[in-house]
Amino acid sequence: MKTDPDAHQRMTQRRKEGFDRKQAAAHQEKGLLIVNTGTGKGKTTAAFGMAVRVLGHGMRLGVVQFIKGALYTSERDFLGAFPGCDFVTMGDGYTWNTQDRAADIATARRGWDAARRMIESGDYQMVVLDELNTVLKYDYLPLDEVLAVLNARPPMLHVVVTGRHAAEPMIAAADLATEMRVIKHPYREQGIKAQRGVEY
Amino acid sequence: MKTDPDAHQRMTQRRKEGFDRKQAAAHQEKGLLIVNTGTGKGKTTAAFGMAVRVLGHGMRLGVVQFIKGALYTSERDFLGAFPGCDFVTMGDGYTWNTQDRAADIATARRGWDAARRMIESGDYQMVVLDELNTVLKYDYLPLDEVLAVLNARPPMLHVVVTGRHAAEPMIAAADLATEMRVIKHPYREQGIKAQRGVEY
Repeated sequence: MKTDPDAHQRMTQRRKEGFDRKQAAAHQEKGLLIVNTGTGKGKTTAAFGMAVRVLGHGMRLGVVQFIKGALYTSERDFLGAFPGCDFVTMGDGYTWNTQDRAADIATARRGWDAARRMIESGDYQMVVLDELNTVLKYDYLPLDEVLAVLNARPPMLHVVVTGRHAAEPMIAAADLATEMRVIKHPYREQGIKAQRGVEY
Repeated sequence: MKTDPDAHQRMTQRRKEGFDRKQAAAHQEKGLLIVNTGTGKGKTTAAFGMAVRVLGHGMRLGVVQFIKGALYTSERDFLGAFPGCDFVTMGDGYTWNTQDRAADIATARRGWDAARRMIESGDYQMVVLDELNTVLKYDYLPLDEVLAVLNARPPMLHVVVTGRHAAEPMIAAADLATEMRVIKHPYREQGIKAQRGVEY
């Protein structure tokens, strides 16, 4: 690229052609099922970035946080303050530490009931189900039941599902699925603690 | 997990131990250089999700969008409306289509001048340099010059760099680097066009 004077022109031309071709082929409008998974950072953060877009457009947003620790409060404070946003947090009810599986299942069920009501209401343009994959991974909710509701969502509703270890049927149902993969992580490699504004 | 009654307890116990161990080891506070790269979705979106956290904490945010199309306006409208946010957009100046490399370099230079002023001012807790990797990939800016400024940033300033094809020295300088990898993409596979609230 540095030495061939035509390379830049060829690259920009290819880029434009590829973009035009994709745009021409893309004509369908529909609500998307979006899955952010993988063990890297950014699954929840990207979901909240989309939530900001939705609120920026004056659209209605629903959020259920299935697993929420004390770290995740600024999004709730910030997004939940908008009249267009309904924000439900279930994480406080979990007993990861005391290891009471029946109580955890009941907590997940309450979260899912709230999520299902949001999805079926037709009142929202986007519903974010934060860490739903994690709850499903632990078998706190039946995957078949969850997928049936997601697949029967209103046609223009976008649903965003986050969490590690997305089940294969969840990926299969998704319109857009992204894996966030760790390249470098400061916790693991440098002994850096969670940073305000970055992690919470 | 479904059949072994002790498996859940072992899993939650391992999870707690792992978390506690990492937290105990993590003691350092510093501004992070965060790189979101890869060809998947969510690089910019996750950066703006962090930006929301920063604003939610009442911290000051600077944003330079090096490559901005008409699709990326709701973030600017939304985040730029906050008194804590300074938002600079350079993308309109690029000539990808007309292929005038000298003009593109001048546009990148103006964006970098704005970014460097934000970084060196000490006035911000986070600076987002959206699509800087892309500008570097095209050799519109000298990588060495950019890295020197990033590495000399104020100690508590977080800088977030997005864009495909992050250079190896950028990864090497990063405290946290994540690759967004495509699992499924609706443009490519289903002929779905860009959706309001999801992509813009």
